[in-house]
Amino acid sequence: MTSDSGAAALLERLGETIAARLKADPASSYVASLAAKGHDAILKKVAEEAAETLLASKDGDKLHLIRETADLWFHCMVLLAWHGAQPADVLAELERREGTSGIAEKQSRK
Amino acid sequence: MTSDSGAAALLERLGETIAARLKADPASSYVASLAAKGHDAILKKVAEEAAETLLASKDGDKLHLIRETADLWFHCMVLLAWHGAQPADVLAELERREGTSGIAEKQSRK
Amino acid sequence: MTSDSGAAALLERLGETIAARLKADPASSYVASLAAKGHDAILKKVAEEAAETLLASKDGDKLHLIRETADLWFHCMVLLAWHGAQPADVLAELERREGTSGIAEKQSRK
Amino acid sequence: MTSDSGAAALLERLGETIAARLKADPASSYVASLAAKGHDAILKKVAEEAAETLLASKDGDKLHLIRETADLWFHCMVLLAWHGAQPADVLAELERREGTSGIAEKQSRK
Repeated sequence: MTSDSGAAALLERLGETIAARLKADPASSYVASLAAKGHDAILKKVAEEAAETLLASKDGDKLHLIRETADLWFHCMVLLAWHGAQPADVLAELERREGTSGIAEKQSRK
Repeated sequence: MTSDSGAAALLERLGETIAARLKADPASSYVASLAAKGHDAILKKVAEEAAETLLASKDGDKLHLIRETADLWFHCMVLLAWHGAQPADVLAELERREGTSGIAEKQSRK
Repeated sequence: MTSDSGAAALLERLGETIAARLKADPASSYVASLAAKGHDAILKKVAEEAAETLLASKDGDKLHLIRETADLWFHCMVLLAWHGAQPADVLAELERREGTSGIAEKQSRK
Repeated sequence: MTSDSGAAALLERLGETIAARLKADPASSYVASLAAKGHDAILKKVAEEAAETLLASKDGDKLHLIRETADLWFHCMVLLAWHGAQPADVLAELERREGTSGIAEKQSRK
C-alpha cells in the first residue's frame, strides 16, 4: 500500500516519465514503441484495457481487476501525455466535482 | 491544479466516499442509484466512458478528454468499491511496476 | 428462423429503411431521433451494444447474446447509413475474404 | 456486390464454416487458433473490432469503416458459434423487431 505522499508523488512521477518516454527511442521503451505506432494505437490499447477490466470484473477476480484497472489508467496517462495533459489535470477535474453532490453533479453535466 | 498532498488525500477521500455511497439511499446519491441497478450497470458506464474518452481524443479536444478521463476513472473507482477494492490498490500496482523498465514489464506480463 | 431469401431481403430492407429514417422526423422514429443527436451519439450506441454483447456472453446467456448482437448489428447499420454505406457492402467484404483461408487472410491484413 | 441469394447463402456458409473451424487444428485456421485461446480471447477481439469501427468512423473513412464492420460482424459470428448460435438467429431477431415501429420497439425493450 502506498502512503499518501507516496501516492501523490507516484502519479506526478508517472506523468513525467510517460511524457519523457513518449518521444524516446521505440526500442528502449514500451511507451515510446506504442507512441511510434500513432494516436490510434494508443486509443486501441485504452479500449482493449477497458474491455479486459470488464472481463476481470465479470469473473469476480479482484486482483485481476486491480491489475487491469492499473493497465487502463496507465494507458489513459499515455493518451493524456499524447495531448500534453497530465494525471494532475484529471485529479483537478475530480476535485472540482467533489464539492457538488453526486445527483446534482450528474444533472449539471447533462 | 491540486497540490501533491491534496491529490493523495483526494483519491483516498473519493475511495471512501464512493464506498460509503454504494449502499446509500438511491434517491440521495448518483453512486447509490447506479449501484442499485447492479454490477452490469456499473460495467456499462465504464465501457461508455471509455468510448467517450476515445471520441474526445479523436476530436483533439484536450479539455473534453480530461473530463471524460475523469468520468472513466470515477466509474472505475465505483467498480473497485463494488469489489471491496480502493484506488490505493491501483496505485500500489502502478508503483510495483514502476521499478521495471517498460519493455521488461510488458514482456513479463505476457 | 428466416429462410435464405428472406434473410437476404431482410438485410436489404433494413438497410433501406434505416437510410430512409435517418433524416425523418425525430419524433417519429428511433433511428431519426438517434441521428438527430449526431455522429457521436450513434458511435456511443455501437460501443454500448458491444459492451452489452460481452456481458451477455460472459453470463453464458445465449438468447440474451443473440438479442445484444442484433442490437449491435442494427446500430452498425445505422452507422453505415450515416456514411452512405449499406449492409450489402459489409457482406461483399466478408465474401471477398471468404476465398482465402483464415490464416492467410489474417496475415494479408497485417 | 453480392446478389440477394448470394448474401443469404454467404451468411449461412460463414456460420457453418466458423462452427466447423471452431474445433479444428489451431495451426490450420485463424478461427481455431482464436478459439483455442478461450472465450475471453474472442470477447477481446469483439471489443477491439468495435473500437476500430469507432476510429474508422471518426476518420470519416467509409471503406475502412466497411472493413472494420466486417471484422466486427465476423468476430460476432465466432462468438455466436462458441455458444452454439448462428447468424440466422440474429437475422431472425432483427426480423422479429421489424414489424414494430422504431419508437414502439425501443419502448418495449425498456
